[in-house]
Amino acid sequence: MKIQLALDRMTIEEAIEVASKAAPHVDILETGTSLIKEFGMSSVQKLKEAFPDKHVLADMKTMDNAVYECGLCFDAGADIMTVMGASPIQTVEACVKEAEKRGKQIMIDLLNTTAEQREKLAVFKHAVFCEHVSKDEQELTGTRLTFTGGRLKTAAAGGLTPESIRGMKELPDILIIGSAITKAENPGLAAEKLRALILEKEAIQ
Amino acid sequence: MKIQLALDRMTIEEAIEVASKAAPHVDILETGTSLIKEFGMSSVQKLKEAFPDKHVLADMKTMDNAVYECGLCFDAGADIMTVMGASPIQTVEACVKEAEKRGKQIMIDLLNTTAEQREKLAVFKHAVFCEHVSKDEQELTGTRLTFTGGRLKTAAAGGLTPESIRGMKELPDILIIGSAITKAENPGLAAEKLRALILEKEAIQ
Repeated sequence: MKIQLALDRMTIEEAIEVASKAAPHVDILETGTSLIKEFGMSSVQKLKEAFPDKHVLADMKTMDNAVYECGLCFDAGADIMTVMGASPIQTVEACVKEAEKRGKQIMIDLLNTTAEQREKLAVFKHAVFCEHVSKDEQELTGTRLTFTGGRLKTAAAGGLTPESIRGMKELPDILIIGSAITKAENPGLAAEKLRALILEKEAIQ
Repeated sequence: MKIQLALDRMTIEEAIEVASKAAPHVDILETGTSLIKEFGMSSVQKLKEAFPDKHVLADMKTMDNAVYECGLCFDAGADIMTVMGASPIQTVEACVKEAEKRGKQIMIDLLNTTAEQREKLAVFKHAVFCEHVSKDEQELTGTRLTFTGGRLKTAAAGGLTPESIRGMKELPDILIIGSAITKAENPGLAAEKLRALILEKEAIQ
């Protein structure tokens, strides 16, 4: 299982600083949507330059203009990008094709998708499927992530903490963690402890 | 009726140059999603600085993190921002509230929304509702926009040309036009002709 560190609501410099501390214990560095919208592709580029040996994910949340948006973030150094499962299926398909052509990876964000959309999306067998409870849903409705596993490659995101990870019956392939590391007093130690917790859970399963 | 000029897939300098030519004939300047993701909030800021008397729309396509994303683009000078109708309803509501607090405007992008979602969104009576056929849908399925009007404030976007505007039975409150102006040999003349066409249609209605 991999840990993805989501870097959001901070400057690029702060993101690099937090990532430096957590890097030994995480696998994927996520340039959050807030960094992309505030600073553009230089956020992806600088993160990849600082960590050339880590996988960098660009949380583009693409809804349209698939090939162009793939071009933007893959050219900037991203290894993985996100597309919304709630976008037209043509957009997801175009992202998947473009990523395959470039030897890159797509993560499909399942935020607010219907059962019908999920069923249609299951054809993209090489994508990572991300169960996602949004920040707004967590804060405004108290909804918490319930990850139930799946046959395809999966990820889970949304306010994950050591407690909620402990409560998971099944672990996804990628756990996406933001504030539990970035807002910790000691982000390096928080990442290290999360890694240990996951290894412990994996050993039991 | 207002014309919104969508500026996409170009540098900020090119956007300002095209906008300069078309400005006398358009009402709203849209910082396209592609500009925001490539250059960040400096795209919104520079466009507003160059055209302080025009309304500037930031096509944020917000899916989550509503208040933060409102803050980013409104602080950068945007007068209007977009949120996806396909996002959780809490996100749309939080955008609407934040915009009201700041005396700004929200445009709800109806791309790929279900009938049920549209019904729920209709409570946001002060928002602009944008019928939107995505670029990917246009290019990959040949789908064209069919605008049927509505009681609330409306906008329409998606490959609009003088021909498709001529064919519209009803005009929305805002027509969003990109390539038909930005890719014209003479963007100023293209904008002027579109304005004349719309005035002509309005006179008939």
